[in-house]
Amino acid sequence: MQNKHTEIAALGEFGLIDHLTEEVEIYNASTLLGIGDDGAVIDTFGKQMVVSTDMLVEGIHFDLMYMPLKHLGYKSVIVNLSDIYAMNAHPTQITVSIAISNRFSVEALDELYEGINIACKKYGVDLIGGDTTTSQSGLVMSITAIGEVADNQFVTRKGAKVNDLICVTGNLGAAYMGLLLLEREKKIFLETPGVQPDLENQAYVVERILKPEAKREMIQWFESNKVLPTAMIDISDGLSSEILHICKQSQTGCTIYEEKLPIHEQTRLNAEKFNIAATTAALNGGEDYELLFTADMADFEKLANCPLVSIIGHISSAEEGAFLITNGNNKVKLNAQGWNALKN
Amino acid sequence: MQNKHTEIAALGEFGLIDHLTEEVEIYNASTLLGIGDDGAVIDTFGKQMVVSTDMLVEGIHFDLMYMPLKHLGYKSVIVNLSDIYAMNAHPTQITVSIAISNRFSVEALDELYEGINIACKKYGVDLIGGDTTTSQSGLVMSITAIGEVADNQFVTRKGAKVNDLICVTGNLGAAYMGLLLLEREKKIFLETPGVQPDLENQAYVVERILKPEAKREMIQWFESNKVLPTAMIDISDGLSSEILHICKQSQTGCTIYEEKLPIHEQTRLNAEKFNIAATTAALNGGEDYELLFTADMADFEKLANCPLVSIIGHISSAEEGAFLITNGNNKVKLNAQGWNALKN
Repeated sequence: MQNKHTEIAALGEFGLIDHLTEEVEIYNASTLLGIGDDGAVIDTFGKQMVVSTDMLVEGIHFDLMYMPLKHLGYKSVIVNLSDIYAMNAHPTQITVSIAISNRFSVEALDELYEGINIACKKYGVDLIGGDTTTSQSGLVMSITAIGEVADNQFVTRKGAKVNDLICVTGNLGAAYMGLLLLEREKKIFLETPGVQPDLENQAYVVERILKPEAKREMIQWFESNKVLPTAMIDISDGLSSEILHICKQSQTGCTIYEEKLPIHEQTRLNAEKFNIAATTAALNGGEDYELLFTADMADFEKLANCPLVSIIGHISSAEEGAFLITNGNNKVKLNAQGWNALKN
Repeated sequence: MQNKHTEIAALGEFGLIDHLTEEVEIYNASTLLGIGDDGAVIDTFGKQMVVSTDMLVEGIHFDLMYMPLKHLGYKSVIVNLSDIYAMNAHPTQITVSIAISNRFSVEALDELYEGINIACKKYGVDLIGGDTTTSQSGLVMSITAIGEVADNQFVTRKGAKVNDLICVTGNLGAAYMGLLLLEREKKIFLETPGVQPDLENQAYVVERILKPEAKREMIQWFESNKVLPTAMIDISDGLSSEILHICKQSQTGCTIYEEKLPIHEQTRLNAEKFNIAATTAALNGGEDYELLFTADMADFEKLANCPLVSIIGHISSAEEGAFLITNGNNKVKLNAQGWNALKN
C-alpha cells in the first residue's frame, strides 16, 4: 500500500474527490446534505453556529520529513476543532480544501484523509465539503470548522473582569519539546542518513506535537457543572501570547504565577537537556491546544475541584499590566513571543 | 499608493490582520460576532445553512500577469457566492484564508482585500474570519461561504425528472473568450514588451473573465415567482460538464438544442477570430458562473416569460443518454471536456 504510487491525474478531479470521500461518514442529524453538491446544507435546529478557519502550509506549519501524512490529517482537524471548543461550542461539521503538487500520489492523499476521517470519527464531526486542486509546490490545507452552541452561551475573548480566575487545561510546553526533539533527530538524520531516531521515553511530548487532542471534555464539564467562562481562547501560540489576547480584548491586565503553571515531567526533563527553562516552554512554546479561560470568583470551588484545570492566576486592571510572578518572587512583564508564521 | 512596498513582516501576523480587516463592515443581523476571536458566531434564526468552499492557487486558477489583485479578490468571492446561489440560498457570510509569499507587499494585499470588500458590499455578505500566513511560493486563497435558506427550500443536483425543462441564465462561453484574449495579449507582451494590449471592443468578454458576477437575481426571481427548480448547479467547468453532473446525480439523460444556447454577440465574433465554434465555447468554456437548472413543465409559462433565462432543452431518461441536437439536426453525445485543474 505504502509503495504503490498512483498518479493523481489518473483519477481526474471528480474521480479523486469520489475516491477520497467514499469513506466519509455522517454523525450529526444536522447534516442534511454533505459532499457532492455546490454546497452542504446544515439544519441549525434554532441553535447559533460558530465558524472557524485555518490554513496550514508545508514548510511553514509542518514538515513532512517528520510529520506523517496521517498525523497531519488528524492534527489539521484537531487544530480547527480546538477553535470551536474555545468558543464554548461543539464542532459538528468541517470542510477540507487541499492544494497538492503532483509529487503526491493518490496513496499519500489516502493517508492524509485516513487521519482526517479518524479525527472526525473520534470527535463526531462530519466532513461536508471541500476542494481539491493542484499547487505548483508543496501542500496547502485549509479547513473550516462549524460548531453549534445554545443561544448566547458562546464565549469570546473579551469578557474577562478584574479578579476573575485564570485557568488552563492539561499542561503546557510539551508540544514545543516534542518539536525540538523532532528537529534534532531530523538534523542528525540529514547528517548521517540511516541513523534511527532516538525518541525512547519521549512518547508523550512527541505525541503532543504530532497527534494533539482538542479539549472537548472541558466544554462538557462546563455544561454539566453550569460554569460559563467569562473569556476563553485556545493555546496555539503559547500561554503569554494568548493571555495577552484576552487582556487586550477585555481591557484588563493579569497576574500569573510561575509555580502554578502545569508542566509535564517529560517536558521538564527535556527542557533541562535542551538547556531551556521549562517555564519559557510553557509560556512561549505554542501548539499545546489547551484551553485558557477566565471565570468568575464565584466558581472557584468548582474549578479548584475540577481535575481538568489548573488555576494559574487572576485578572487585574489594565493599568496594573500583565505579569508573571516567578518562583523567586520577581515580577516579569509578559511578552507575546509566540510563534508567528509571518516571521518565518 | 501602487508604488509603496511595505514588507508584510513589518506588521507581523496580528498587525496585518488588524490592518486588512479594519475596513470590514457587517451587513447581516445574523452575524453576532465577526473577525477577532477563535471563531465567528452566526445566529441562524431557525433557518437552514448552506456551506461551500473553494481554493484558488496562483498559476493554476489565476495568472497575476493579467489578473489585477483587486479583480482577483472580487472574483474569488463571487465564485463562492455563486455556489451558494446554486443551492437556492442567500449568501450571508464568508471566511477568507490567504497564504502569500514575501514578494507580496502590504499594499498588494490591500488591493486584494479592496476587491473582497467591494464584492461583500455589493452582495451584502459579511467577512467574518480567516487566516493569513506565508507560503514559500505564490498566492493561495481559500474561501468558505455560508448562506441561509428557508426550511427545505434548498435545491441539489439530484432532483431532475424526465420531461423537466433545462434552463440557463445569461449567456455562455464569454469568459472563455475573454481568457483566450488575455492569453493572446500576454503572449504578445512577453514577446514584445511595451506593446499595449489590444482589447478594444472586447470589454464584455474580458469583464466576464476578470470580473464575473453571481446570479443573485435568479434566486430572487424564484422566490417572487414561487418557482422551485428541481435541480440546480452553477457553471464553472462548462455547460456540458455541469449538465452531466445533474444527469448523473439525478439518474437521467438530457437533450439540449444548439440553436437555443444563449451566446453573446462578442463571444461569436471572437470565436470566429480564434477559429473556434461558438457552441464549443458555450459547452466547454467554463467560468461563466451562470446558473443551470431544471424545472417542472408546469413552470414553463413563467420561465418562458422570465428575461433572465433561456430554456435550452429537456431532461430525458438515463437510457436515452445525454445529447446535443445541432443546428444541422445531428445528435452529438455530450462529453465533460470541462476545465480540470488537476490535469494542468
